Amino acid sequence: MDKNLKEDLISKEFKVLDKGFVRLIDVMGDDSAIVQAARVSYGEGTKTVREDRGLIRYLMRHRHTSPFEMVEFKFHIKLPIFVARQWIRHRTANVNEYSGRYSVIRDEFYIPEIQEIRTQSQINKQGRSDESISVELAKAIATRMEATQNRLYAEYEELLSLNIARELSRINLPLSTYTEWYWKIDLHNLFHFLKLRLDKTAQFEIRKYAEVISEMVKTLVPLSFEAFEDYLLNSIIFSKNELLYLKQLINRIDEINEDSLLSSGFSRTESREFLDKLIILKNL
Amino acid sequence: MDKNLKEDLISKEFKVLDKGFVRLIDVMGDDSAIVQAARVSYGEGTKTVREDRGLIRYLMRHRHTSPFEMVEFKFHIKLPIFVARQWIRHRTANVNEYSGRYSVIRDEFYIPEIQEIRTQSQINKQGRSDESISVELAKAIATRMEATQNRLYAEYEELLSLNIARELSRINLPLSTYTEWYWKIDLHNLFHFLKLRLDKTAQFEIRKYAEVISEMVKTLVPLSFEAFEDYLLNSIIFSKNELLYLKQLINRIDEINEDSLLSSGFSRTESREFLDKLIILKNL
Amino acid sequence: MDKNLKEDLISKEFKVLDKGFVRLIDVMGDDSAIVQAARVSYGEGTKTVREDRGLIRYLMRHRHTSPFEMVEFKFHIKLPIFVARQWIRHRTANVNEYSGRYSVIRDEFYIPEIQEIRTQSQINKQGRSDESISVELAKAIATRMEATQNRLYAEYEELLSLNIARELSRINLPLSTYTEWYWKIDLHNLFHFLKLRLDKTAQFEIRKYAEVISEMVKTLVPLSFEAFEDYLLNSIIFSKNELLYLKQLINRIDEINEDSLLSSGFSRTESREFLDKLIILKNL
Amino acid sequence: MDKNLKEDLISKEFKVLDKGFVRLIDVMGDDSAIVQAARVSYGEGTKTVREDRGLIRYLMRHRHTSPFEMVEFKFHIKLPIFVARQWIRHRTANVNEYSGRYSVIRDEFYIPEIQEIRTQSQINKQGRSDESISVELAKAIATRMEATQNRLYAEYEELLSLNIARELSRINLPLSTYTEWYWKIDLHNLFHFLKLRLDKTAQFEIRKYAEVISEMVKTLVPLSFEAFEDYLLNSIIFSKNELLYLKQLINRIDEINEDSLLSSGFSRTESREFLDKLIILKNL
Repeated sequence: MDKNLKEDLISKEFKVLDKGFVRLIDVMGDDSAIVQAARVSYGEGTKTVREDRGLIRYLMRHRHTSPFEMVEFKFHIKLPIFVARQWIRHRTANVNEYSGRYSVIRDEFYIPEIQEIRTQSQINKQGRSDESISVELAKAIATRMEATQNRLYAEYEELLSLNIARELSRINLPLSTYTEWYWKIDLHNLFHFLKLRLDKTAQFEIRKYAEVISEMVKTLVPLSFEAFEDYLLNSIIFSKNELLYLKQLINRIDEINEDSLLSSGFSRTESREFLDKLIILKNL
Repeated sequence: MDKNLKEDLISKEFKVLDKGFVRLIDVMGDDSAIVQAARVSYGEGTKTVREDRGLIRYLMRHRHTSPFEMVEFKFHIKLPIFVARQWIRHRTANVNEYSGRYSVIRDEFYIPEIQEIRTQSQINKQGRSDESISVELAKAIATRMEATQNRLYAEYEELLSLNIARELSRINLPLSTYTEWYWKIDLHNLFHFLKLRLDKTAQFEIRKYAEVISEMVKTLVPLSFEAFEDYLLNSIIFSKNELLYLKQLINRIDEINEDSLLSSGFSRTESREFLDKLIILKNL
Repeated sequence: MDKNLKEDLISKEFKVLDKGFVRLIDVMGDDSAIVQAARVSYGEGTKTVREDRGLIRYLMRHRHTSPFEMVEFKFHIKLPIFVARQWIRHRTANVNEYSGRYSVIRDEFYIPEIQEIRTQSQINKQGRSDESISVELAKAIATRMEATQNRLYAEYEELLSLNIARELSRINLPLSTYTEWYWKIDLHNLFHFLKLRLDKTAQFEIRKYAEVISEMVKTLVPLSFEAFEDYLLNSIIFSKNELLYLKQLINRIDEINEDSLLSSGFSRTESREFLDKLIILKNL
Repeated sequence: MDKNLKEDLISKEFKVLDKGFVRLIDVMGDDSAIVQAARVSYGEGTKTVREDRGLIRYLMRHRHTSPFEMVEFKFHIKLPIFVARQWIRHRTANVNEYSGRYSVIRDEFYIPEIQEIRTQSQINKQGRSDESISVELAKAIATRMEATQNRLYAEYEELLSLNIARELSRINLPLSTYTEWYWKIDLHNLFHFLKLRLDKTAQFEIRKYAEVISEMVKTLVPLSFEAFEDYLLNSIIFSKNELLYLKQLINRIDEINEDSLLSSGFSRTESREFLDKLIILKNL
């Protein structure tokens, strides 16, 4: 990894939502660290960059995940509690969170942007629709949210001023309250996080964090990120039944051969692997 | 394990706090399952109950944790979100939580009992003191908490009635809102949870859950729980410096021998292990 | 789960390889336990079996993995050490293994069947080819293997008879030595194990264990296993580039609609999800 | 961390046993990274080095483990397979191991040093005794071990020369065969590994690796390592019964007070915490 790339990113605050941020604190390893670890398994030394790219792509598409675990990222993140509650479900990560028992919680709450205040989706039972509500209504809702948050914080402060324990005073603070944490995760598990949280079914607010983190990861491990995009993020899994149906639709399957694939930009190994899949399809 | 003990416990609601509960959903294994797994390691068959107890105690005090992982508990738990946030930090467990994106959150909030509304502890920066505040003040606080919760729920319902997405409508609900989850964990990790959450420095509210779970565990795996109490829960770890100091205080250390220990109720192995510790102490 | 099914399986030895076995020791939960946990998330009660099947299939194909973690299996397995070394790489499981430090290792070694002694694959750098070698050569190899194993065990016994520590005496025993362990794992992680170890690139010997375990799992959680087969085991993942190529081959993509899919046996939800994938394909 | 310290260590081969080694490949973070993460929880900024030491010691003795997870180590290790089999039981780590299916295993085997060839311990059922056997016998054993290893490797090479698959040819190679891996682990879990593997009950061979790693860790995170030694490695856990007995032996417990402890080198917090333990002891 270009040392400067890392230096440029480290500790910079990348804004997310209205008051949140992501800061890269540290990185261990880069694309070459993945190659290095994989080559221990294969008992081979280092090769050219072109071969490194090929190996990384091979590892990704065959779900050989352990070499990607050899790269580690540490972030400082500021995020609303309802986002933190979704985030923490990714268990294979290390977390140190700001403690509302130990310290006074700060007066910062999430208020969605006007255009993001939307109605319940009819299709996706857990998400919001693409349609906006009227700007007037959205503004009224945002204003009311803010007023509520202010009132809740005033109550919190009042309890603190009565010397009520912090751990109790906080219990009526809203899920929109911002918290902060250090979050450390290896690249394999980070890709898994990104796959799930970049998805259109993920809640808008956590998706914004995933997008910012994606950009950082792309800069720091470009070959791995490219492989992630090609083989994981933008791949489609077809089930047995779907494959059976797809098979009927593909009437020129026999025309495909390694040469036609090579001329379409597939590498030799990729060609063979694709042909293998098509043979499975044909023989279903 | 006595089948009846399990049947008696399963699915019964044990109340915790004002509206929470713990329900045992299922258990895999009991004290004998621990012995059985340990004996695979040792290449030995089953023995008498007395020997089982000895083996379990040996495993516990030597922190041979893997046999305790062979027993699994599954609970259904209803708990306030601020407790859930502490609880979820135990990563080696499986969780399915009620989703506020998918379903409407219910109108249930935690309000502390009057005598539990206390001031900030001066000694423990993260806890509350032992002193109560005036009953009048406590009652006023509880009443106000409830009023706030009701107002927040009314706002939530209003947003839902405007068809605002559930995932957004909920963001100003308070941390005192009750949630529910299924929680599955092995006995080794459950003991770790109990050790931390039965501790006087744990927040009162999560301690109440730990106490209820302890009672269940005690009933279902009595030998393991007894060993947990003797060797983990009620043990004291002395640091190097503390041991050096302790050594000076113990002036009759040479009087201790296996016979005196045996007559004090130590088993032969326990006696030897204690003598080993005292020798380390003496030679510091 | 039918109680009898479980009772029928429990503790029966299913032979694997020449001297190995798999024994089911215990199971917690079944298909309905998955549904039960998922419905906590969705805030809904139990439904009909038909709806259970639909829900399980939905969970599987959307990789909602946590409800599958609510079912737990415990096996007693006897396996050669070189298989154990591959197996243990699945970290999300609990293990108690026979200890060669504590106990005398038994005189049991793996010898491959004659027809499984094969040459190095030219295609798969980590596997063996489909071609057999001559029966004579294979027999000679097997005979020699056995002689070597016997000699190594004789040396082991001689060291033991000299009272050399067990932990040292064993170090020249071969990787073909049989060991035993208790292995406990949740269904989600078991499916992951099976996906990898049923694959044709997995070593023949571990595949045999995966096959035996598959049969047990199929019996105990039939709906989940069916979903696993349809959506995970027999699915194909197409990468971005493969999808682009596939798109060109599918010239009747516009003819597909929900009705044609429904009449091909897709459920309504499955149809919609397949159409979504085809739209992505079309718009690539 | 002093950058030079890290640069000095990185990639240097530290010999272990006859042919093994430990090489530090990379480190993320140092003592200050632990402090930094802990202070996010406490909502406080950085302080003096003296306060850093105090905080690290506080975290260690209260088993606040998550800040120690913020430091990550990556090693390249060459070790005999029977050691690798003990090592891999530490599941919270990332591993890439040399593959005997993919590559030809190298002709390197562990032979114990003459003085380490010992008899079975009578006390410790899983270890070797402190007594040596005669030098002649030990030499004879070592010579024989080597001859066996050479013969086994010759058989391996012969199978390879017959083009038998690598994955099969290797199965009679001994547990003393050297393998290699990349191993990545966070500091908290590394301390746990060291605690167990530095223990006198750990097998001599793995202890040698733990000792070499300890020296590296001590250099790189000196404050944390000191705390580890004082509060974890050299601490003694006394069970409830042992404490009851100890209590009788301590007849001047009332003489201890904060002043006497302060003058013995305890910090104020340490004094208070020790007094708390003594009060528990007194009141048992």
